[in-house]
Formats: sequence, C-alpha cells, structure tokens
Amino acid sequence: GLTPLMMLFNEKIVQPKLGQCTEAPTEQLPDAINEKNPVIIAGFGNFGNVAGRFLRAHNIRTTILDNDSDRVALLRRMGFKVYYGDASRYDLLKAAGADTAKLIVITIEPPSKRLEMIETIKKHFPNLQMLVRAQNRFDAYDLMNAGMLHVYRETIDTSLRVGVDVMKMLGYRAYTANRAARTFLKLDEKNLKKLAAIRDENQYIIAAREKIEELEKIIQTERGDIKLQDESFHRAEATASIFGF
Amino acid sequence: GLTPLMMLFNEKIVQPKLGQCTEAPTEQLPDAINEKNPVIIAGFGNFGNVAGRFLRAHNIRTTILDNDSDRVALLRRMGFKVYYGDASRYDLLKAAGADTAKLIVITIEPPSKRLEMIETIKKHFPNLQMLVRAQNRFDAYDLMNAGMLHVYRETIDTSLRVGVDVMKMLGYRAYTANRAARTFLKLDEKNLKKLAAIRDENQYIIAAREKIEELEKIIQTERGDIKLQDESFHRAEATASIFGF
Repeated sequence: GLTPLMMLFNEKIVQPKLGQCTEAPTEQLPDAINEKNPVIIAGFGNFGNVAGRFLRAHNIRTTILDNDSDRVALLRRMGFKVYYGDASRYDLLKAAGADTAKLIVITIEPPSKRLEMIETIKKHFPNLQMLVRAQNRFDAYDLMNAGMLHVYRETIDTSLRVGVDVMKMLGYRAYTANRAARTFLKLDEKNLKKLAAIRDENQYIIAAREKIEELEKIIQTERGDIKLQDESFHRAEATASIFGF
Repeated sequence: GLTPLMMLFNEKIVQPKLGQCTEAPTEQLPDAINEKNPVIIAGFGNFGNVAGRFLRAHNIRTTILDNDSDRVALLRRMGFKVYYGDASRYDLLKAAGADTAKLIVITIEPPSKRLEMIETIKKHFPNLQMLVRAQNRFDAYDLMNAGMLHVYRETIDTSLRVGVDVMKMLGYRAYTANRAARTFLKLDEKNLKKLAAIRDENQYIIAAREKIEELEKIIQTERGDIKLQDESFHRAEATASIFGF
C-alpha cells in the first residue's frame, strides 16, 4: 500500500525528526559530488521538488542536496539525481560548487537552519545569489533583516489562487480576479519590507493593520477602474454594433 | 519586542498544540455567530488569512472561523472579524450558516481534521462547495479520493514562482517562464488525478516517474514552439521594418 510512502513524504512526520536531530551525529557520510551547475537546490521536499522539476523541464542544470536519507533513496527511484548531505555545511556547499554556481534555492527545514545557512553563504560564497523559502510573514522579516532580497512565503501564491477561484465560482471574471491577485502580491511584498523593521509589538500591530487596510483600498480602487474600463469597452462595443463594424 | 507575536504566528509552534489537543475538552465555548455570508473560511492562519484579505478587498463577505484563541485575539486587534470555535463541528458550521453559504474554504490543521470536516459537510450540508488546502501530493490524493474537486497543494504555486524567478535571473524572458509555469501547474494537476487511484507502491513509483518525465517533455516541446514563434515573430518584425510599416 501507499502508507510508508505517504509517511515518508509527509513533512509533518519528517520535519520534527529534522528539527530534533540536527545536532546529533549522523552516521551516514555526505555523498561525493561530481558535477558543477549554475543552480543549487538545498532541500528537495515538496517545495524544492516543484521548482527543481520546473527547471529540469527547461534543461536548466541543478545540483540537488537533501539531508533526509529515506527521501533521497525514494527520489532516486523516481528518477532524480539527488546528493545526500547537510546543505547548511560549508564543506558540502563547497563540494556542490557554491563558489562557481550563480544561484542557490534554499528550502531546507527548519527555518532556523535556513538562517544559519545564509550566514555561511554570506561569509564564504559572497557571489552566490540566494532565493529563500519563508514559512510565514515573521520568518520572512527575519530573512529580510538578514539581507535577503528574494524571499518567498511558502503558501502565499496558492492562498491567492484560492481567493481567485472563489471569485470565479461566485461569477467574477477570471481576468479581473487574476489581475487583482498580482496587484495584491506586489503590494503585500512591498508592505512586508516596510513592516520588517518594526520591533515594538503595539507599533507593529498598528502599522500592519494600516498597511492591510491601505492595500485593500488600492485593490478596490483598481476594481473601480476596471469597472469603468469595462463599461466604456461595452459602450464602444455597442456603438460599433450600431454602426455595423 | 516581536518575539511573542512571532511565536503566536509560527505554525511550527501552533500546529503541534492543535494536533495533540483536538480531542481534549476545551474550556472556552465557541463564539455566537450573528451573520450569514456566501463564503465561510475555516482556519485563519497564514493560508486562510491571505485568501480572506483578498476577498475582503473585493467586498466579498466571509464568515471567518478559527480555533486558536490567542490567534483570534490577535486577529481582532488587527481589524479582522473572527469567530472562535472548532470549524469541523456540525453545530459551529450550522451557526456559521453552512446551509445557506455557497462556498467554504477549508484550511484548518492538521490534514486529518480537514478530512473529518469534509465528511461532516458532505453529510449535513451537501450543497456547500468546498475548496480544500492540501499539505502535499499525498494529502491531495486523500482529498481527491474523498471526492474533493478543488484541492490546493499549499506550496506549489510559490515553488513555481521560485522556478520562474530563477529562470528570469538566468536571463530567460518573463513571458516564456510564466507561461511555462501555468502549463506545468495545469498538467501536474491532471497527473495528480490519474495518480490518486494507484494503491501499490511500486506501481505508483513507475507511474509517477513516467508522468513527471512526460510533463517535462511537454514543457520542452512547448518551449520549442515558443522559440519558433519568436523567430517568425522577429522575422515578421524585421520584414515590417524593411518595408517601413
């Protein structure tokens, strides 16, 4: 049956193990790496896997690292070339070609391990550009305060797609909903940068509430514009049909 | 400082508590609900929150339920109207207007609780359309096997955005990358439906590997088409400029 497979992939079960055992001595040695690629992917769970498959579909060569030995074994059976090892360690990064690669996608768990890894990279591989997974808004603040420019809150895009689909199911136009989602994400990322610097809890809540309401007003105004555009478009269409062209 | 706030929002800390205490008697009674809306959102953590804010920006009225009392208190300070209670329970769903609402967005943790909630809704509120968060591919299979049509793997869209951004940072055109990401998601969802029915582990691995490779070939073919289109477009442009129009 699927059960062992499901357990293996289920990050609910994998994550606590990773979290608790990071400092414990691992018996398995990291794999030797015999390639250098422009992109390194650190962590090949649900998050790293999709980005990795997408890049492979474009023939973009990646070096994939993962420190869950069961997952590495399964991924190999699925046709992926994955190296076992702790991607936050200098020696593994060096072996993976961190000094010649252009980019690294950091998805390893837990978030504290990602912050640790970023410091190692800043110190030893200053030319390597980092794209980093964030668990949530507060994790994203930590990453931004660590100087990260490419921070991805892990569920934000999918949650916005749910919002878009709700609108479509309620009868709104797909184009309008998709456009609003892009605006929402852009503005929310901008607000994130402004809010990352606030340290006081009360000040934070006041500022966050203000930014949230401001964003919603902008979306509403943009909707207003779309409605007007739609109306003039429909008027133009009506005029066109009257004059027969 | 931000620390207690960060801890509150951090699902790493909130989730285990939810997971372990679901069956324990809760001392706090659920809130009385005094409104009926077309959309109910069950669970207002990182995932539910973004969808909820997006809908609020469009003046779509939602009834929000969450069973973390600390989070409910904080969300209220942030300007959200949230009702405290266990959204998987029949009585709370009834009070929230599940018999007249059109849609419910199910984001509560853990995934087992979502499956339980789906059964309650199928039995008592058969007209309520469900949009359900899935933790990963295997959780999605469970949801699809429970008859769910709107299943959202929680990190897939953001992970694809990482893939798109890597391509852009490597010099690919944004249009090409975005288009490929849409194709990837569409095909991967289609494959998910086909793979959900396979119960045998070896068969599953063979089929999944095949589907993954097939998807990548389609993306590569589509890229080929785009390249040819681009070339003929550039040729057309060049021709146009020669003839001066």
